[in-house]
Amino acid sequence: MDQAVKTASPFLLSPDDPLNDLRMSAKAMPLYEHVKRFIVEVVNPMSAKYEELGKNRHGADRWQYAPGQLDLLEGAKAEAKKQGLWNFFLPDAETGEGLSNLDYAYIASELGKNPMASECMNCSAPDTGNMEVLERVGTPAQKERWLKPLLNGEIRSAYAMTELHHASSDAKNVATKAELIGDEWVINGEKHYISGAGSPRCKILITMVRTSPDAPPHKQQSMILVPKDTPGVEIVGAQHVFAEDHAPHGHMHIRFNNVRVPKDNMLLGEGRGFEISQVRLGPGRIHHCMRSIGAAEKALDLMVKRGVSREAFGKKLAWLGGNVEIISRARIEIEAMRLMVLKAAKAMDVLGNREARIWVHMVKAMIPEQVCKIIDQAIQMHGALGVSQHTPLAHMYAQQRTLRLADGPDEVHHLVVGRSEIQRMEGNMDDASMLQVFRN
Amino acid sequence: MDQAVKTASPFLLSPDDPLNDLRMSAKAMPLYEHVKRFIVEVVNPMSAKYEELGKNRHGADRWQYAPGQLDLLEGAKAEAKKQGLWNFFLPDAETGEGLSNLDYAYIASELGKNPMASECMNCSAPDTGNMEVLERVGTPAQKERWLKPLLNGEIRSAYAMTELHHASSDAKNVATKAELIGDEWVINGEKHYISGAGSPRCKILITMVRTSPDAPPHKQQSMILVPKDTPGVEIVGAQHVFAEDHAPHGHMHIRFNNVRVPKDNMLLGEGRGFEISQVRLGPGRIHHCMRSIGAAEKALDLMVKRGVSREAFGKKLAWLGGNVEIISRARIEIEAMRLMVLKAAKAMDVLGNREARIWVHMVKAMIPEQVCKIIDQAIQMHGALGVSQHTPLAHMYAQQRTLRLADGPDEVHHLVVGRSEIQRMEGNMDDASMLQVFRN
Amino acid sequence: MDQAVKTASPFLLSPDDPLNDLRMSAKAMPLYEHVKRFIVEVVNPMSAKYEELGKNRHGADRWQYAPGQLDLLEGAKAEAKKQGLWNFFLPDAETGEGLSNLDYAYIASELGKNPMASECMNCSAPDTGNMEVLERVGTPAQKERWLKPLLNGEIRSAYAMTELHHASSDAKNVATKAELIGDEWVINGEKHYISGAGSPRCKILITMVRTSPDAPPHKQQSMILVPKDTPGVEIVGAQHVFAEDHAPHGHMHIRFNNVRVPKDNMLLGEGRGFEISQVRLGPGRIHHCMRSIGAAEKALDLMVKRGVSREAFGKKLAWLGGNVEIISRARIEIEAMRLMVLKAAKAMDVLGNREARIWVHMVKAMIPEQVCKIIDQAIQMHGALGVSQHTPLAHMYAQQRTLRLADGPDEVHHLVVGRSEIQRMEGNMDDASMLQVFRN
Amino acid sequence: MDQAVKTASPFLLSPDDPLNDLRMSAKAMPLYEHVKRFIVEVVNPMSAKYEELGKNRHGADRWQYAPGQLDLLEGAKAEAKKQGLWNFFLPDAETGEGLSNLDYAYIASELGKNPMASECMNCSAPDTGNMEVLERVGTPAQKERWLKPLLNGEIRSAYAMTELHHASSDAKNVATKAELIGDEWVINGEKHYISGAGSPRCKILITMVRTSPDAPPHKQQSMILVPKDTPGVEIVGAQHVFAEDHAPHGHMHIRFNNVRVPKDNMLLGEGRGFEISQVRLGPGRIHHCMRSIGAAEKALDLMVKRGVSREAFGKKLAWLGGNVEIISRARIEIEAMRLMVLKAAKAMDVLGNREARIWVHMVKAMIPEQVCKIIDQAIQMHGALGVSQHTPLAHMYAQQRTLRLADGPDEVHHLVVGRSEIQRMEGNMDDASMLQVFRN
Repeated sequence: MDQAVKTASPFLLSPDDPLNDLRMSAKAMPLYEHVKRFIVEVVNPMSAKYEELGKNRHGADRWQYAPGQLDLLEGAKAEAKKQGLWNFFLPDAETGEGLSNLDYAYIASELGKNPMASECMNCSAPDTGNMEVLERVGTPAQKERWLKPLLNGEIRSAYAMTELHHASSDAKNVATKAELIGDEWVINGEKHYISGAGSPRCKILITMVRTSPDAPPHKQQSMILVPKDTPGVEIVGAQHVFAEDHAPHGHMHIRFNNVRVPKDNMLLGEGRGFEISQVRLGPGRIHHCMRSIGAAEKALDLMVKRGVSREAFGKKLAWLGGNVEIISRARIEIEAMRLMVLKAAKAMDVLGNREARIWVHMVKAMIPEQVCKIIDQAIQMHGALGVSQHTPLAHMYAQQRTLRLADGPDEVHHLVVGRSEIQRMEGNMDDASMLQVFRN
Repeated sequence: MDQAVKTASPFLLSPDDPLNDLRMSAKAMPLYEHVKRFIVEVVNPMSAKYEELGKNRHGADRWQYAPGQLDLLEGAKAEAKKQGLWNFFLPDAETGEGLSNLDYAYIASELGKNPMASECMNCSAPDTGNMEVLERVGTPAQKERWLKPLLNGEIRSAYAMTELHHASSDAKNVATKAELIGDEWVINGEKHYISGAGSPRCKILITMVRTSPDAPPHKQQSMILVPKDTPGVEIVGAQHVFAEDHAPHGHMHIRFNNVRVPKDNMLLGEGRGFEISQVRLGPGRIHHCMRSIGAAEKALDLMVKRGVSREAFGKKLAWLGGNVEIISRARIEIEAMRLMVLKAAKAMDVLGNREARIWVHMVKAMIPEQVCKIIDQAIQMHGALGVSQHTPLAHMYAQQRTLRLADGPDEVHHLVVGRSEIQRMEGNMDDASMLQVFRN
Repeated sequence: MDQAVKTASPFLLSPDDPLNDLRMSAKAMPLYEHVKRFIVEVVNPMSAKYEELGKNRHGADRWQYAPGQLDLLEGAKAEAKKQGLWNFFLPDAETGEGLSNLDYAYIASELGKNPMASECMNCSAPDTGNMEVLERVGTPAQKERWLKPLLNGEIRSAYAMTELHHASSDAKNVATKAELIGDEWVINGEKHYISGAGSPRCKILITMVRTSPDAPPHKQQSMILVPKDTPGVEIVGAQHVFAEDHAPHGHMHIRFNNVRVPKDNMLLGEGRGFEISQVRLGPGRIHHCMRSIGAAEKALDLMVKRGVSREAFGKKLAWLGGNVEIISRARIEIEAMRLMVLKAAKAMDVLGNREARIWVHMVKAMIPEQVCKIIDQAIQMHGALGVSQHTPLAHMYAQQRTLRLADGPDEVHHLVVGRSEIQRMEGNMDDASMLQVFRN
Repeated sequence: MDQAVKTASPFLLSPDDPLNDLRMSAKAMPLYEHVKRFIVEVVNPMSAKYEELGKNRHGADRWQYAPGQLDLLEGAKAEAKKQGLWNFFLPDAETGEGLSNLDYAYIASELGKNPMASECMNCSAPDTGNMEVLERVGTPAQKERWLKPLLNGEIRSAYAMTELHHASSDAKNVATKAELIGDEWVINGEKHYISGAGSPRCKILITMVRTSPDAPPHKQQSMILVPKDTPGVEIVGAQHVFAEDHAPHGHMHIRFNNVRVPKDNMLLGEGRGFEISQVRLGPGRIHHCMRSIGAAEKALDLMVKRGVSREAFGKKLAWLGGNVEIISRARIEIEAMRLMVLKAAKAMDVLGNREARIWVHMVKAMIPEQVCKIIDQAIQMHGALGVSQHTPLAHMYAQQRTLRLADGPDEVHHLVVGRSEIQRMEGNMDDASMLQVFRN
């Protein structure tokens, strides 16, 4: 029984633990309010005009910006920089605001409400993760060449990880290989779903390759900087997401045909690719999940709005059949998800990415699936309009559905969470490490 | 208790009822085999070529067929006509094969396996329903003018029912109005999701209008034949379905701006629009559902295929985690749905569309929702490829998801089914009518 | 694609297959009608009185019948025998009616409506399976000694299979052992959940034992007839089912302490226990499932009745919130389950138990889980009364919930069904055996 | 859009709000630790002995304690009182510890781990609610007569609210009536599911009656103190809960036959019964939900333990099929529920019961349903043992299932939550009141 009591409550070892304080810091509140204001005052009007410019371009090259679009975007970015809303994603860094993950999580849920908001403030994926990587492991020369223009918002970047023919949830599956020939790495292989690589503004690909086939499984991979215009980098096409190509951003299919880059383009060192990839994972997943909650809020908002503005059989839709309960369940689920992602963010702040990883897996397994369900119900409330281009719902669904596959499919996250419960019971973890992992 | 026994089993009053014989008729078997063969030998190779011609047409008018496409399609149609595989959808008619709904249901599940199969044999929606309407209620002149070329596959048609601003699950909500001015009906209003109206080959719109605002609710609507090229018929654009526009077929948004058609274009008579719409509903919903089962079979097939051809963590995906159970549940659900749709088809054969309507509502409420779930699981098994253009799954999902909204959203069908159970208990139905509705 | 088509449709190879004719035979209809009448006229009044006699017996030995109860039961049995409603469960046998599984399935769903109906007509589990076993594999002496009084309804029997300490879904796990010492088998071990063994009328235990530890896994087990009053047979107690002990029937925990029975009590021969157990499985599972559908019908009936007879917030419960849809889904699910179990029964008739086994696994995996859900919703509609002794719902729930664990838990049935899909795709089954297994 | 933004986020108006600090207070931590220690050191050994004494009492009066049981219980109570662990449930009161709802929520989850823990520390339902009512609205004489012995743990009490023939989720449905005749209230009516009223130690029933049929709906009810031994108080019997009678505590069916009590037994005043009932609701529901989370923890603990200690098909159960994912989902759900109930408790502390009521409805709608699901999965992992008396799971399931009906069925709570979302959108609430309700 003692054993039972001990193992039953690892998630709540001490109720007064700082992990249970989910308040935003006083320090970050002004920034949070500022970002909200900036989205309403600057981003929303800009993005409406931007979208308008993108319409009715039949026959145009979808992989170039429409005339005037870039001016709008750069204008908003300049304004953001002027107002000091720039690069605040960078944690604990000279270059950033030093926001905690918890503080950033609150802000990310606001950023999730307009798809252009992040980029206006230079806080958009995949650049955030890439900048973080460069900042932590880049050499001074690498920083000067790539981090600086990224931090200035002059160029964009992509992260070339996923491969077509191998389950990328298993990092050891990297097949794209790089061989050192003379002073150059010669890269051959094929990647796909490389988000953002379609844009003419994307200049650099942080590329995961296999350099050391004879090393232990987690030491075989390396990360190399590959300028997108290097000869041999072939953009095969764009992978669609529920029929959307997301041009000009794009999720590109890329072949590396004898691509040669200088030896110095290696990040950190041979065989350290897997190690670097861990840097990106935690915060990125949390940011995605927090934006997902913004999406769920929007879907619930649209669902209720439609429900009170449309009638059938003499009643408002919202009051028909099971709709009140559907709305109630969506609200409950959203609040539960929000608390979970805030707790995961706080866990990262207090315990560090590694020790908090179970929390990150939990929210990644939980949130996109639930948000898909809520958006789906909002679609149903809208009838055929719900799947059309006249509401944002179909697009939102496609995005959240894709999140259930990106950064590890749901199943892998459940495997990690379930395994940790089982192994704890099996006693494979000693009390000390258990306390570390599950502390609070 | 007696009461309980009686009311508990309306669906199974007599176990030897013909409704429980779900075998295809011996008469229809050769046609069924022929259709299957034709799809493999003619349709599949043709559609592969057709699709190829449609690729890489950047800048071309998506609302025209690509060069060569129509030749391919017409070739297959000619071959089908030659082989006698033509118009067999028409029930109990001189012009058709006189297939029962049950026989047709079996064939429809084969047609569901290639999206072009139906059109090759002149059995595709919405023309099937439109031809059935014309055949039953058209005047000789209307038949000569529109039914004949439709039966010959020379033109196509659309059914203009759904309105933008009113819940179309409530048929009384028709707002598009037609006024008799002199010898002409003058039509004003707005319709959307008019499937097939985008094609240059679509020539006629069977249009639901409000002609008699002072009549009782179900006598206010009429159906009128509107040639698509009539002045005032404005194609506003195409409604998307999860970012697909289905060009050149399309789901069009149409405005009727003082559109004038001759008085004789009225079908059957003023105020009889609702009555005509009932003719279309039963069989059409069954056909959709049977094709949905074909889609579910295909999704399960792809799911298992992927599951046995891809490995992660040293095991085939199919054997990982809960995947075996997911596959099992999909198979069980498919067989249950198949039996239900066959039973509904048989009920229509034995009882007639009206008396069998609860069965039709049951399958329409049950099947698209379940098939969406199965396709979604197939997507998950494929990882990112599942949402891409490289598997048919995202497209299939979009189609089935849309079916949950078309021909009445799920909720309306559940309302009818649940209400019939409640009213039976409340005694609002006498035993005789109860027997009729639920006989078997 | 050919491959896809072939492997995608194994469940529907030929639409005119007799497997799709789910009608009861004309021959069986009079029996079916007779059974229904007998339940209403004889069983229902008798069981009401029987139940009354069982009340308020505080302090009495629950494991004996209450005074008068046995007289009532025997009276009904005598009447059934007189009317010729006796032992009709036995398939294709001189002693029985020669009902097909399909015919019996229809009748079983009627038997499911009163828990005493089966016993009145000598068709109740576990005796049916035990009689079938004895009839097929018993020696003349064994038949004379045990089958005859069972067929006459003079005694009852139990089937001692499940063991406390081993997963019984894996038949190889039998630990109770029997050793041949001289002319006697000496049995030692422990069984539990031996249904019916609590009754003073239960005289014989068909007991699965391990006799041949060195044989191949499926040849190690044997079945032996153990009279309940043999010295060493210790009834340890009754296993509860959601706090019910089902006295005096009971689900008994039994220890075998050096229990000695004559060598001739072995059934069929050493090492053939597993083979015999297969005889019991198919039909028994089908009968359970068909009775489950009777239970679901009853639950839906009670749910709707309560829904129309109780008001809250000025409306009948049935019309509040999502209740109409809950009722609709229950009806749809019931019809789908009914068709599935009929199809499984027919498959057993046409293909034989072995070839039809996937169908049996499918219905066993599908039905109890769904019926639990429907009963649970009926409970919810009744408020606190739903869990009380004043409706039959809590008892029904407990029974169906237990069925999800008996005769193999849901998971094992899903494993078999999913595995057959996967192996078919993997090509482990050749076309001929595939056709056999999945024919229809 | 502004409107959308404003209405979409009422649950997160200010991230630095104290509502987001879910830490237990430093002040309460020693009590929390003390309670945990007391349960392990005193309650667990005592309850094991207590349970043992209750076994094998065939023929005994189940509505009396077994010999020795009360001594054990009173011994533990005396020890708790001595250690100062007494009555700490009382919020902000001289008599209690002044624990906040949040602090108490943490402690309640520990109390939930042993069903006798609460009573040992005089913190068990329904007495807690009753004492709170007496403390707040009782006259000095009423307090002296009933509150004092309750606070001392000398007697117990019941709360007679629910009626047999009326939906008690609608408080206006009270039919039991009390008429003032001379100096006495004369009470007639029928109540059921009066928990705790079976115990010989229960001395007083706080009874909801209808006194003022002509007043507005919420002013018709009153609460009256009815000593259980008053002539005319007839205990009809015990309502079962999934076949359990919970004797001697019991959920009693009680008739009031011309029961006469002095005029002074009225609480607070005529027509104020509904008002008093609100006092009880908030904290009680939260305590139930927090104990439910303790139950879910225990179920998960048992599920995993069984999963690692039993094998089938050569593998530990926990690793078979979808079990890892089931375990993962249970853990995620538990953490999400825990955070929700902590937040609801904190909301009550910061906003008051009335303003925080949506949070209370949310957790009451969310938690018992989910906990039922987790316990059900634990049952499945245990096979037949899961429904037997040899694991606590069937009993736990029955309790949680009943919670879905008690204090308002799930549907009513969803109705309140969904309605608040809809009304907010409809603008029926002004911003100020919205802020109050949803503040944080």
